[in-house]
Amino acid sequence: MNWYLENGKDSDVVLSTRIRLARNISNIPFESKCSKEDMKKVIDKMKTANIGYNLKLLMLKDMDEITKLSLVEKRLISPEFIRDRNADGAILINDEENICIMVNEADHLRIQVFSAGLETKSLLDLAIELDEKINKSIDYATNEKYGFLTSCPTEAGTGMRASVMVHLPGLTETGNIRKVLDIINSFGMNIRGMYGEGSTSQGDIYQISNKQSLGITEKDIIKNLELITEKIIEQERLARKHLGKNTIELEDTVYRAFGILNNCKKITLSEARSLMSKVKLGTDLGIIKEMTDSKIRKLDLYIKNANLQKYLGKSIDEYEQDIKRAEVIKQIIAED
Amino acid sequence: MNWYLENGKDSDVVLSTRIRLARNISNIPFESKCSKEDMKKVIDKMKTANIGYNLKLLMLKDMDEITKLSLVEKRLISPEFIRDRNADGAILINDEENICIMVNEADHLRIQVFSAGLETKSLLDLAIELDEKINKSIDYATNEKYGFLTSCPTEAGTGMRASVMVHLPGLTETGNIRKVLDIINSFGMNIRGMYGEGSTSQGDIYQISNKQSLGITEKDIIKNLELITEKIIEQERLARKHLGKNTIELEDTVYRAFGILNNCKKITLSEARSLMSKVKLGTDLGIIKEMTDSKIRKLDLYIKNANLQKYLGKSIDEYEQDIKRAEVIKQIIAED
Repeated sequence: MNWYLENGKDSDVVLSTRIRLARNISNIPFESKCSKEDMKKVIDKMKTANIGYNLKLLMLKDMDEITKLSLVEKRLISPEFIRDRNADGAILINDEENICIMVNEADHLRIQVFSAGLETKSLLDLAIELDEKINKSIDYATNEKYGFLTSCPTEAGTGMRASVMVHLPGLTETGNIRKVLDIINSFGMNIRGMYGEGSTSQGDIYQISNKQSLGITEKDIIKNLELITEKIIEQERLARKHLGKNTIELEDTVYRAFGILNNCKKITLSEARSLMSKVKLGTDLGIIKEMTDSKIRKLDLYIKNANLQKYLGKSIDEYEQDIKRAEVIKQIIAED
Repeated sequence: MNWYLENGKDSDVVLSTRIRLARNISNIPFESKCSKEDMKKVIDKMKTANIGYNLKLLMLKDMDEITKLSLVEKRLISPEFIRDRNADGAILINDEENICIMVNEADHLRIQVFSAGLETKSLLDLAIELDEKINKSIDYATNEKYGFLTSCPTEAGTGMRASVMVHLPGLTETGNIRKVLDIINSFGMNIRGMYGEGSTSQGDIYQISNKQSLGITEKDIIKNLELITEKIIEQERLARKHLGKNTIELEDTVYRAFGILNNCKKITLSEARSLMSKVKLGTDLGIIKEMTDSKIRKLDLYIKNANLQKYLGKSIDEYEQDIKRAEVIKQIIAED
């Protein structure tokens, strides 16, 4: 099963964990200096690298628009990747989609591994395994002082970004979210809305990631992220407990959201996200009996524009998307 | 069955029709001059009048507060009646509650008959029958020039007020309601929000009634009211047809209202009324499959504060009413 349809550790708060390693190949120019021929060389090297893990190499240019956007929505690839490297980019991906290596993104390689819930250690093991497998046939660009070299200097050293996606409706509702976000920042972590840099939160979802990648070990990056995430989980659960004291208000809020989702005949993605946040909260707290974690996971995925069209198996315009989104939501809720 | 739980002619627009005859007894002083002893005389005369129709005489002072308010909510008695005549007022009422005579309201007698839907002729027959039955044992105060005398001069002559309650969500939605209300006024009819004089409409419900009661026959009052009501029905149905062209918008609006009503855990009367208006529209147009006319009728009644408490068989405070209202709505919707 795809990792994003499963539940993981602390899934009431943590939606997913991702580790990303930026790697570049020695003797091939970096990003802006990297010619079309250079990029072809990178692809060819990856084709013959024999990494295993049932990874398939897919060229971006061979994929249809909806498929590419559906990968962005799943956060398996970056929006910039399709925009800037559509002709020369590729991915190596497995069926479970918990491994996705972007080839010719900002770096030659961005090795990414994903998991539902808070699973940093096993995820780091998998990332390192993959890294070493690739390194067997490919020489990385490194420097004795800095470690791995990257196109953006802030990523050099370990070349690692570890991030967790957290759902914080409790802290949002109690009004303590601002304070918590400030604390995360003061601990040297980045916190952002759902779709990366600069974006605001939708559906009370935030991404926490390490700022520092140089002069720190991979294990310490992971340890820091795990520590801060555990604090946030604790705070979010406290906030939910606090909300739970005023039970009828909370029940009313989450069931109204459920009632609209299950009865509307058209709905925008933005409204659906905001209602889903409340329904997920109600489900996590055991209030909404009609829902399960797995339905939440499916809904979270298929309300999104491109994945909705994937679900339907056809391309439809924006107006039609709002109508079909309402239909699909009702269908998924009604599933056994 | 109680008349207000049944459907009648043109019930998609007309919720109810009422005819009221104001009568005073000769040789007993009117309203402000009417002493406690005088009022007792009026009651005694009604006790011995032997009108039939299985009417029971109930003194206001013997009724509990919730029962009295529930009668106001059903529009069987006026709010002023409980406030001003609580010690000396009485009603004569039958089990179906389609006959309710207020004794010692502004006039000695206000003979009222009710029906679901637009049923003016049979209703007028019933009112006249009752009037004549009472007149057999009681002499009315009349005047050759003016006809029946009333405490308020504007009611003299026939002493008759005929009114229909109409539900106009279509005209409200298309924005044509103002124009239609102006036309009704120009035809010499009163139009008001749901709870009589001065109140604004709640749930898109309006009451239309005759202004003139002097120098016109009962039959002509009825004819005029019926004519203007038929025009309004026509306009409202046209508006709904127009809305129906934009089907998905309309379906979305009415099903969202249904979704909230069927899922909320607390709800104020005011919000419930506004949502019920949409749900009734959706049911009348055959859009909402989960509802029936009879459930709409029950909901319309039992969402109201006092009738809600009647339904539950106990007195509860305002906060609890909002919670129980949500429960009762869900129960009634779920009935077979």
